[in-house]
Amino acid sequence: MASSWESKVASVREHRDASLAKVEPAISVATQGLPLNSQKVPASVLTSRELELTESYTVKQLLAKLRSREIKVEEVTRAFLRRAAVAQASVNCLTELLWDQALERAKYLDSLPEPTGPLFGLPISTKEHHGQKGENVVSNASYVAWIGQAHGSCQLYDILWDAGCVYFARTTQPQTIMHLETNSNIYGRTLNPYNRNLTPGGSSGGESALIGMRGSLLGVGGDIGGSIRCPAAHCGIYGFKPTCKRIPSGGVRTHMVGKEAILSTLGPMTVDREALQLFVDVVMASEPWLLDPSLTVGWTKYKYDKPLKIAVQWTDGVVQPHPPMIRALKEVVAACEAAGMEVVDWDCTELQHDKAWEILSSLYWTDGGDETLGRLNAAGEPVLPLTKFIIQEQPAVKSLTQHELWERTKQRDQYRDFYAKAWNAASKDRQIDVILCPPSFSAAVPHDQSKYWGYTAQWNLLDYPGAVFPVTTVDPEKDPKDQTYKPKNAQDEFCYSLYTPETYKDAPISLQIIGRRNHDEKVLAALDEIEKALGRS
Amino acid sequence: MASSWESKVASVREHRDASLAKVEPAISVATQGLPLNSQKVPASVLTSRELELTESYTVKQLLAKLRSREIKVEEVTRAFLRRAAVAQASVNCLTELLWDQALERAKYLDSLPEPTGPLFGLPISTKEHHGQKGENVVSNASYVAWIGQAHGSCQLYDILWDAGCVYFARTTQPQTIMHLETNSNIYGRTLNPYNRNLTPGGSSGGESALIGMRGSLLGVGGDIGGSIRCPAAHCGIYGFKPTCKRIPSGGVRTHMVGKEAILSTLGPMTVDREALQLFVDVVMASEPWLLDPSLTVGWTKYKYDKPLKIAVQWTDGVVQPHPPMIRALKEVVAACEAAGMEVVDWDCTELQHDKAWEILSSLYWTDGGDETLGRLNAAGEPVLPLTKFIIQEQPAVKSLTQHELWERTKQRDQYRDFYAKAWNAASKDRQIDVILCPPSFSAAVPHDQSKYWGYTAQWNLLDYPGAVFPVTTVDPEKDPKDQTYKPKNAQDEFCYSLYTPETYKDAPISLQIIGRRNHDEKVLAALDEIEKALGRS
Repeated sequence: MASSWESKVASVREHRDASLAKVEPAISVATQGLPLNSQKVPASVLTSRELELTESYTVKQLLAKLRSREIKVEEVTRAFLRRAAVAQASVNCLTELLWDQALERAKYLDSLPEPTGPLFGLPISTKEHHGQKGENVVSNASYVAWIGQAHGSCQLYDILWDAGCVYFARTTQPQTIMHLETNSNIYGRTLNPYNRNLTPGGSSGGESALIGMRGSLLGVGGDIGGSIRCPAAHCGIYGFKPTCKRIPSGGVRTHMVGKEAILSTLGPMTVDREALQLFVDVVMASEPWLLDPSLTVGWTKYKYDKPLKIAVQWTDGVVQPHPPMIRALKEVVAACEAAGMEVVDWDCTELQHDKAWEILSSLYWTDGGDETLGRLNAAGEPVLPLTKFIIQEQPAVKSLTQHELWERTKQRDQYRDFYAKAWNAASKDRQIDVILCPPSFSAAVPHDQSKYWGYTAQWNLLDYPGAVFPVTTVDPEKDPKDQTYKPKNAQDEFCYSLYTPETYKDAPISLQIIGRRNHDEKVLAALDEIEKALGRS
Repeated sequence: MASSWESKVASVREHRDASLAKVEPAISVATQGLPLNSQKVPASVLTSRELELTESYTVKQLLAKLRSREIKVEEVTRAFLRRAAVAQASVNCLTELLWDQALERAKYLDSLPEPTGPLFGLPISTKEHHGQKGENVVSNASYVAWIGQAHGSCQLYDILWDAGCVYFARTTQPQTIMHLETNSNIYGRTLNPYNRNLTPGGSSGGESALIGMRGSLLGVGGDIGGSIRCPAAHCGIYGFKPTCKRIPSGGVRTHMVGKEAILSTLGPMTVDREALQLFVDVVMASEPWLLDPSLTVGWTKYKYDKPLKIAVQWTDGVVQPHPPMIRALKEVVAACEAAGMEVVDWDCTELQHDKAWEILSSLYWTDGGDETLGRLNAAGEPVLPLTKFIIQEQPAVKSLTQHELWERTKQRDQYRDFYAKAWNAASKDRQIDVILCPPSFSAAVPHDQSKYWGYTAQWNLLDYPGAVFPVTTVDPEKDPKDQTYKPKNAQDEFCYSLYTPETYKDAPISLQIIGRRNHDEKVLAALDEIEKALGRS
């Protein structure tokens, strides 16, 4: 007999499957014998018109065609609904397809005499725990204990809705929303669209997998340790984690509400660079700080008036990036230098990124994880390995007294000041604009192996904004393992042992651009400059 | 035999007295038989040139004369050193006069071939616990336990120093820096420069008393519950509490370091409105966020392009303001309406300011006050009545578990959201620019009676910026007690019972301009508009 938690999960999966069964024409994907790389699956299932609508346009191009009414919102919406269903069959990235709701919305938008809003007709995918516009929306945030609980829309989703978008698909997140992978007892495991043996990253891995399949062009993730940037990087899409309190993040269903030593932020995940800025522009135009007074006011678009000065972080001094990551850095550096930019090293030798992780991991769970583990245990659901890793296997995690919390917060602030001074000192005669660094030590790793967060989480502790962009893919020819490398510590040894070129074949390699806290505008402007140096329009 | 804490205190007072004994020519003020109102004392002691230098100029006018070298820095510095000594003799506002250091600095500045920095030669007074530029600086923050402990300069003071100022006097703060008065076991009680029977307010009451005597034109206070605005209001000077993280506040000596649920901010206290903006301009020009990454980036000066829309808070719904405060509101409202501004009511009936205080008082002392009381007890110094009031007599103060802290923080955030929505709803067809309200239920009250913080602390809970400006003084003829008023609750009864017009004779009455969080620019711009409506240049 199924235990209580399993029967609850079954009801959620039935709901998900029923939502997918609405797709017309029905999607037929053989779930057995799928190729490792799912990139060619859509072409085998969708019509050429659907492929055109979902593959041929950037977000801005598609919006232009919707606004001019050259294409109807309903047709675009149907195409993405069908492609999202293909993605679900391939990589298990959805919690629900919003067939009826999306088509109703699309028809409504088509019925308007004039197109309204800067996102008029754009299908947008959403992470399940953020809630959702619409009636009877429930959100479980991957907690069995919360299955079936009503939850309204978050402020950000109201803004995007008011800008004219269509919500059409909700995506998976891992247990506790605190893995750099995407696996939960409720929805199972989400896979990488380039290689089913690898993770799509997490926690916004449903989004990255879906967008990596072009089952969506734009979605929303959240990031407190890498949850936008890691999955974006692993799936070869663009992701932007703003400084906290630039983008409204209130109203999502989440745990440990009221804990503020380390905050999460929402941010965009998308198929092209331009859409990151578009997303920001739409949000800022709504003056979100009038509803959420915790937000910073304003956003002043930045334009560099001379070539960038970039500091390159080849390693964080704790864990050595795998060879393809180093190759990607070299390729981008060469292009930047060729474009006249100044490139210096970001030397982490004295920057104590390991100390940063100790502080951060403690501040993630200032109650020692009691609330979270209690919720899992109360529902009877198993604690997954990566949950154990991030709570129970972190030496710094314990239930803190108030004075211990103050001490950790003080350490955090001192470390932030220390890092700012390091940036000033390294800038010397000219200010470093951004740091260029890996978003992970590796391409997407095999499942349940994402046990080093340093390359993204460092910037959460510092609250520095970061953007991730695709660069290349793993190529066993170009990226042989360095058999002579001597790991510096146990983490380094574990991470380096994960590398064999063949394991990662086809996996996207992305890089990360980091700016100083609250200098988000400079990060997006630097991404523009660097991509132009790479020959991208 | 003196107990240990008393002998420590004696050494600090000796140091203070010795620093004052350096004044040349020596100041002779009979400490017995001083008039209640100290405003005429300087004229009886200082030379006419000293009176001219300390009374005749606004901050900007004085700076212009220093920059043009029409007046030497040394001469100005000597005048303020002497006047500060008069202030000390009158109202006990100093912890130390920096005779040698200030004159050395002044001579150095005079020796420069060109004047440097926007504050070139301006004497600035500083609150003792902020630390100080210079060698061998100690700071006790009014804790006996910290007497004699070395403490360097804070970031803000480095900025002002680099802008060319002269530090010449350090000022008193109360025990725990958490009274709206200024009384400590170390320095004794600071008095109101308009009426020695009244408090100068606190915690920056040494500053307000000194500046209220024009013993300084510009000083720096700190505010976590009213500590800039209350003393500024009580002494008839200008004070500005920015939104937290606009002005750098790092590096001061304080308690409970690492507690962040409610933050303190530094801000200017000064004799004229223009100097508030000057202070901000100097700080922003230094790009303080490059050293303190917790700061908001930027400051965009605001200029209204149509008449203000002002919401007037006649009462906070908990404690009724005394009659002179209501008269001041009426006078300012009449002037604003005459100037074409739109004036509406800010009705607090449903806004639960009492609930705000419950949350705030709890978040002040999330350890139940253990660290603070422990420090007092360890040194053996008596716990003063207003310390007991703000810790032990507040029902919401207790040592919190992490989960209880999250709950309080959640309540804080919900209340902030609730208040933002109230502002939006009250704005209707046109956005309310600022709230005009009392900065206290009363003029400066008799000593040890400052037991209602609501009129300032409300805006700390909300983290709204606020500026205080002088309006009038208590006039027993114009401000009779309303004998028919029926208090609404025990606090109201206590506060209203404090009013008899004669008690407050000559006491300044100031008002407060409040803006939405992070709309500091609009607060200073509104202050300009309102003062112009009052006929001030």
